[in-house]
Amino acid sequence: MKFPAPVSVQWIGDLIHAEIAGNTAASVSGINEIHKVEKGDLVFVDHPKYYETCLNSEADFIIINTKDVSIPDGKTILVVDEPFEAYLTIVNHFRPFVPAAQTISSDAVAGEGTVIMPNVFIGPAVTIGKNCVIHPNVSLLGYTSIGDNVVIQAGAVIGSDAFYYNTKKNRPVWYKRMQSCGSVVIENDVEIGAGCTIDRGVTAETRIGAGTKMDNMVHIGHDTTVGKNCLFAAQVGIAGGTIIEDGVTLWGQVGVSKTLTIGANAVVLAQSGVPSSLAGGKTYFGYPAEDASLKRRELVWIKRIPELWKKVMEG
Amino acid sequence: MKFPAPVSVQWIGDLIHAEIAGNTAASVSGINEIHKVEKGDLVFVDHPKYYETCLNSEADFIIINTKDVSIPDGKTILVVDEPFEAYLTIVNHFRPFVPAAQTISSDAVAGEGTVIMPNVFIGPAVTIGKNCVIHPNVSLLGYTSIGDNVVIQAGAVIGSDAFYYNTKKNRPVWYKRMQSCGSVVIENDVEIGAGCTIDRGVTAETRIGAGTKMDNMVHIGHDTTVGKNCLFAAQVGIAGGTIIEDGVTLWGQVGVSKTLTIGANAVVLAQSGVPSSLAGGKTYFGYPAEDASLKRRELVWIKRIPELWKKVMEG
Amino acid sequence: MKFPAPVSVQWIGDLIHAEIAGNTAASVSGINEIHKVEKGDLVFVDHPKYYETCLNSEADFIIINTKDVSIPDGKTILVVDEPFEAYLTIVNHFRPFVPAAQTISSDAVAGEGTVIMPNVFIGPAVTIGKNCVIHPNVSLLGYTSIGDNVVIQAGAVIGSDAFYYNTKKNRPVWYKRMQSCGSVVIENDVEIGAGCTIDRGVTAETRIGAGTKMDNMVHIGHDTTVGKNCLFAAQVGIAGGTIIEDGVTLWGQVGVSKTLTIGANAVVLAQSGVPSSLAGGKTYFGYPAEDASLKRRELVWIKRIPELWKKVMEG
Repeated sequence: MKFPAPVSVQWIGDLIHAEIAGNTAASVSGINEIHKVEKGDLVFVDHPKYYETCLNSEADFIIINTKDVSIPDGKTILVVDEPFEAYLTIVNHFRPFVPAAQTISSDAVAGEGTVIMPNVFIGPAVTIGKNCVIHPNVSLLGYTSIGDNVVIQAGAVIGSDAFYYNTKKNRPVWYKRMQSCGSVVIENDVEIGAGCTIDRGVTAETRIGAGTKMDNMVHIGHDTTVGKNCLFAAQVGIAGGTIIEDGVTLWGQVGVSKTLTIGANAVVLAQSGVPSSLAGGKTYFGYPAEDASLKRRELVWIKRIPELWKKVMEG
Repeated sequence: MKFPAPVSVQWIGDLIHAEIAGNTAASVSGINEIHKVEKGDLVFVDHPKYYETCLNSEADFIIINTKDVSIPDGKTILVVDEPFEAYLTIVNHFRPFVPAAQTISSDAVAGEGTVIMPNVFIGPAVTIGKNCVIHPNVSLLGYTSIGDNVVIQAGAVIGSDAFYYNTKKNRPVWYKRMQSCGSVVIENDVEIGAGCTIDRGVTAETRIGAGTKMDNMVHIGHDTTVGKNCLFAAQVGIAGGTIIEDGVTLWGQVGVSKTLTIGANAVVLAQSGVPSSLAGGKTYFGYPAEDASLKRRELVWIKRIPELWKKVMEG
Repeated sequence: MKFPAPVSVQWIGDLIHAEIAGNTAASVSGINEIHKVEKGDLVFVDHPKYYETCLNSEADFIIINTKDVSIPDGKTILVVDEPFEAYLTIVNHFRPFVPAAQTISSDAVAGEGTVIMPNVFIGPAVTIGKNCVIHPNVSLLGYTSIGDNVVIQAGAVIGSDAFYYNTKKNRPVWYKRMQSCGSVVIENDVEIGAGCTIDRGVTAETRIGAGTKMDNMVHIGHDTTVGKNCLFAAQVGIAGGTIIEDGVTLWGQVGVSKTLTIGANAVVLAQSGVPSSLAGGKTYFGYPAEDASLKRRELVWIKRIPELWKKVMEG
């Protein structure tokens, strides 16, 4: 999330009661989690295991729970006891949760020719392009941006909060939600099936590329980027922070793990599971998804075990 | 889709600016895609690979992008450059998309004893029988027909558009939706779980047979026919154009591919995948779904590979 | 379900036109199905195969379709021709289905700081604690109880009817719904993803333990008990009557069968299927879910079959 305008790091320090060290005169442009952080951004870290990653990331400002680190040139650390709570304080300040006063937010914008069917919820700062159809009982949560000629079938949810938690197992509530302040961007000519759910970015964006079509009950996790002209059949699930390049086809009930890449024009056959990145232009099958022809041959080999057994055991 | 009344093929030709050849005096009763076409219907074809199939189908009228075919006796061809666009023109003329003016369409019909809970959307030309319960936040899109004693749990979507596209990868938008003008028919005593989605037929109907029960989040694709007294557990997905005969049981998360048949009283165990037709009266398991006892034995054989290896490699 | 106050077994006998035998002077505290029955409860049985189980269960009162059983000391039988119909009569008397007169029931209770977003349905006898957010298009069906600091994302359904049927294949409608009179209890600090569905208990309760977090499109069956601080990724499905102990993690698209137990702190990897109970504290994978490291080794063994084949067949 970018702030409405850059803010002095001193002001941020005061807001979260931090001790500041390093470049104390700089201005902060926004806040992002570590996978999405950009130059000028704040990031937070509360575990020594990740100190170095955060200090050496694109982030210029690091909220951290120690002073005993060497600060890279030109960067700033903001030292607090509870960096996660400081993150929540900043997000709540700049993007507070506002209970909806009406079913369609007064600042919603919809282009010419767009049809909003009954029982649709539209949250704050949502924009919808031209010639779209938003079917009944759809929820478009805040900060969702929709292009032209987009169709969203009934009951779909766009912009639900990221499934992303701060985890500590030494407290009564192990998982504390990292409050989402990101968004969803749906490009032109996308179609989204009935009952699909697309989470918004934690701090950045979830993006669905132009011309992509999804069948019913497809789940897209936070901060995932889907390319152009992809085709996802029903009940596909894609976890967070993943990149699906252009022209990828995922058949029914395929599951894709987080923060990996599926290359352009890859095809993944029904019910396959993708635990790690796949090169583009090939057809995959099974769990873990592998070259489909190899995997099919494996199924044949399994059927030959009894014959092998007989030969070996009976001489 | 049948037209309200038969229409002269000359009139259709004028509507889509087609050159007509063959039997130019005939009347057209409706329009259907190739899998569902009936005598008296129009069908369209735009790829030479499918010319013969369409010319020799039940269709009496073929919208086509060539004159160089031999027209079967008594049939008519309508020649245009873009048959797919002609299809859209005809569908839009006879069944235009009408933005809903109200949450429950003024032409909706519900029988005695039927309860419609709050936040339910009902589109045009929907009929509901007697003693049904339609739970909150359900969407019944246009042209859905529901029998007696039907229960639809909260959040379900009936009659969403078919996931069916005209595909050409040499244009910016690869997939163009073949606009649905079909319907959903739900027979007596059916129960549909929370969050289920049932797509309507592209041009014909999706049908759920009497007494069939579905658990939550079941997906049924367009033009699929489900028999009587079937039982589908949660998160089952069935693709389009498939036939599930009477008394079939599909356990949780089973996936069924398109345009195949599962025979009467078959049972498919949880998480199995069905890529091709299955005979009735048996129990199936795994991917691809096979006789369950054979498949279970395969799992045992796999566990014996290390023993086999030892025997062979160590002599 | 407990009755509002204990009721004489004579009164129940009159309601269902039963002949009573055994302890005819006792009072009945409630009605429950056999998996959940407690002392003082009524239960019903209509198949000789289950007569003994029911007579010797915790139930003090048994609705049964025979007189030819020996009645355990102090217990009562209520003899009718159709025990299932008698069950429905009792449930309908004490918890009749009431069509909702409004979108939010007039007896709904919500604590301080709780936000109910637009298009939410709230049925009768629902209580919601403090500082909760109920997102748009959520359905909270009757008798749902929600703790403090609970977040329910858009489109979720809590309290849909159990997928639980009286089955007889010698009648036109094979499956008759056992009308649900149970409830859902969601403890403090739970978060439920967009499009999730949680069925209520048939006669008892479905419970989600404090601090548990669910991603989108998770399905929880009737009468299932989920412990504290569990984490369920998207598209997980859990059938009815199952016990998930504290701290269990289920990754995406995992399926869990009915009436089994997964022990505390178990982890089940993505797309696995759990057909029977699993001990706590371990990581599982595959179908049927087994120790993940063993299962991974199996995948390696399968790849070695061709080498084995070559060695054996070619000498």
